[in-house]
Amino acid sequence: MTEPGSAYRKQLEAALAFMNEGDDFLVVSHVQPDGDAISSTVVVGWLLGKLGKRYVLLNESDLPSRLRFLTLADTIQHFDEQAPPFEFTRVISIDCADYKRIGTVSSSFPPGTKLLNIDHHPTNDSFGSVNVIRSDAAATVEILYDLIEHAGIALDRDAATAIYTGLMTDTGGFRYANTTPHVMSIAAELLKLGVKGNDLADHLLEKMTRPQLMLLQRGLSRLSFSEDGKIGWLYITPADLEETGADPEDLEGLVNYARNIDGTEVGMLFKGTQDGQTKVSLRSAGRIDVAAVAQSFGGGGHVRAAGCRLELGLPEAMPKVVDAVRRVLV
Amino acid sequence: MTEPGSAYRKQLEAALAFMNEGDDFLVVSHVQPDGDAISSTVVVGWLLGKLGKRYVLLNESDLPSRLRFLTLADTIQHFDEQAPPFEFTRVISIDCADYKRIGTVSSSFPPGTKLLNIDHHPTNDSFGSVNVIRSDAAATVEILYDLIEHAGIALDRDAATAIYTGLMTDTGGFRYANTTPHVMSIAAELLKLGVKGNDLADHLLEKMTRPQLMLLQRGLSRLSFSEDGKIGWLYITPADLEETGADPEDLEGLVNYARNIDGTEVGMLFKGTQDGQTKVSLRSAGRIDVAAVAQSFGGGGHVRAAGCRLELGLPEAMPKVVDAVRRVLV
Ligand SMILES: [Mn+2]
Ligand SMILES: [Mn+2]
Repeated sequence: MTEPGSAYRKQLEAALAFMNEGDDFLVVSHVQPDGDAISSTVVVGWLLGKLGKRYVLLNESDLPSRLRFLTLADTIQHFDEQAPPFEFTRVISIDCADYKRIGTVSSSFPPGTKLLNIDHHPTNDSFGSVNVIRSDAAATVEILYDLIEHAGIALDRDAATAIYTGLMTDTGGFRYANTTPHVMSIAAELLKLGVKGNDLADHLLEKMTRPQLMLLQRGLSRLSFSEDGKIGWLYITPADLEETGADPEDLEGLVNYARNIDGTEVGMLFKGTQDGQTKVSLRSAGRIDVAAVAQSFGGGGHVRAAGCRLELGLPEAMPKVVDAVRRVLV
Repeated sequence: MTEPGSAYRKQLEAALAFMNEGDDFLVVSHVQPDGDAISSTVVVGWLLGKLGKRYVLLNESDLPSRLRFLTLADTIQHFDEQAPPFEFTRVISIDCADYKRIGTVSSSFPPGTKLLNIDHHPTNDSFGSVNVIRSDAAATVEILYDLIEHAGIALDRDAATAIYTGLMTDTGGFRYANTTPHVMSIAAELLKLGVKGNDLADHLLEKMTRPQLMLLQRGLSRLSFSEDGKIGWLYITPADLEETGADPEDLEGLVNYARNIDGTEVGMLFKGTQDGQTKVSLRSAGRIDVAAVAQSFGGGGHVRAAGCRLELGLPEAMPKVVDAVRRVLV
């Protein structure tokens, strides 16, 4: 992937130059960070350490507890607690499609701060002074793997584990369509470095908390289908979250139980909010463009995964959206 | 993996010689075939075709409908329907740990039949005239990949898809501890040949039939835990299978919902049988040896996955086994 002289190689060289030319770095990722965001953050920290640089890892949101095991994860500072504790001259933004995704953290950047933008989202608007954007990368850690290889620095098991974590979470456990030969080749190299892929899969993909289990029990018991079985949906009320002690992030994945039933073209999860509105997650098995449905309610997304919000309670919102999907299915 | 002169390379050479020296082959795998067994069967058929040989693919059990899409799968004959329709001189047995696993099919082998035994189970007793056993292979298709590479035959997308299917199913979607660097490297090569890994994952790992969903709903609604949360169990009655229209194979994976809850050391699934007995699947999160528990009831298995059968109904069997696990946990 990094043929000499290629545009990508030039981007990697510019990124390395950006790192080599500075002394003090702030490393940030997006709010409500996922596995790739946190893995990328710690891998960039690890690389800056190898290059002999000073750095602070910072995020607006709390660290998801599942990712606490990653090397350097305990050094990621939470923005609300305190201002960055030192003067930095350069910012590295990772896994952020645009400047806004960095969140309130960006208010601490002095005017004219030089910013390196490393990301894999196709919508990235190249907001950095230096940009490494590769939308055919499954995860930002995939770009970082190339960067570290290009720098001629040998990965250790800790850094390899973080890269594997980002790959695993952003590919849904090597299942999504972004699971390219390059992803699998990198995974092979990381396993050679001693990464415990099985433990990571157990911890990150298989394990469920008791609140998640209780949500699943409630959600599944309410799974409903249209007469022809082509639409499946379930719902979660604010009381469900309260009574189970679940976090909103525990709802992730629930919608797939509706989508993944044989014969189902569209799966939906309806989430009632405290203020009486309804958030809808839509998933398509491939034939139906759920982004179009979401757009008709002021939402958006991708062909196979979209979302919208209705200013209606669950009992009114559900039949409305189900009917809209029904009309598209005809 | 196939260094010149290595024992493995010699085995591969012997296997190729076995194929080249015959004209008519019977290809068999184990009863109640899984993804690897059927994938291996069709890949051996594909290879024999490339070598210009005649062959019949045969299995005692019906083809699982999820695997019908594989190349040559529709040519796999069901043993009960008819005797093998031609004289064969050589048998190739794949993914069978011992001769008995071939099932009643072996009654059609004339005395003195030459048999090539290709398998990855550590307990394989080398029952063939020629044996290729590699217990560090995640799946039999992994050995077949090496064999085809060694033969210098180029894979096409159909054969590559079958190999990917076997790898994916025997590694639990690249999640089990048998997911080695070699597995991931092969997966990378297969994806380069155009294998649709995402479609396969959806079809083989994510999708659920309505009967499977109904079993999951019933099972989850009954999930119980010991006071300390270290033991989780659920049960399925014969009436559940009947009322949902589910097959016994639909129970696969259900036990993991018990094992995968945070804090659970042992997960169990109790299956009541029509004749009033109880089959138990035990899964350990790693610390507890569930094979020892299963053995105390006359069963067996591995440290992390074991099973046993009690000549007791569900109401009597469940507390007995839960108590046995409780004693081991102390
Ligand atoms: Mn990402
Ligand atoms: Mn196998």
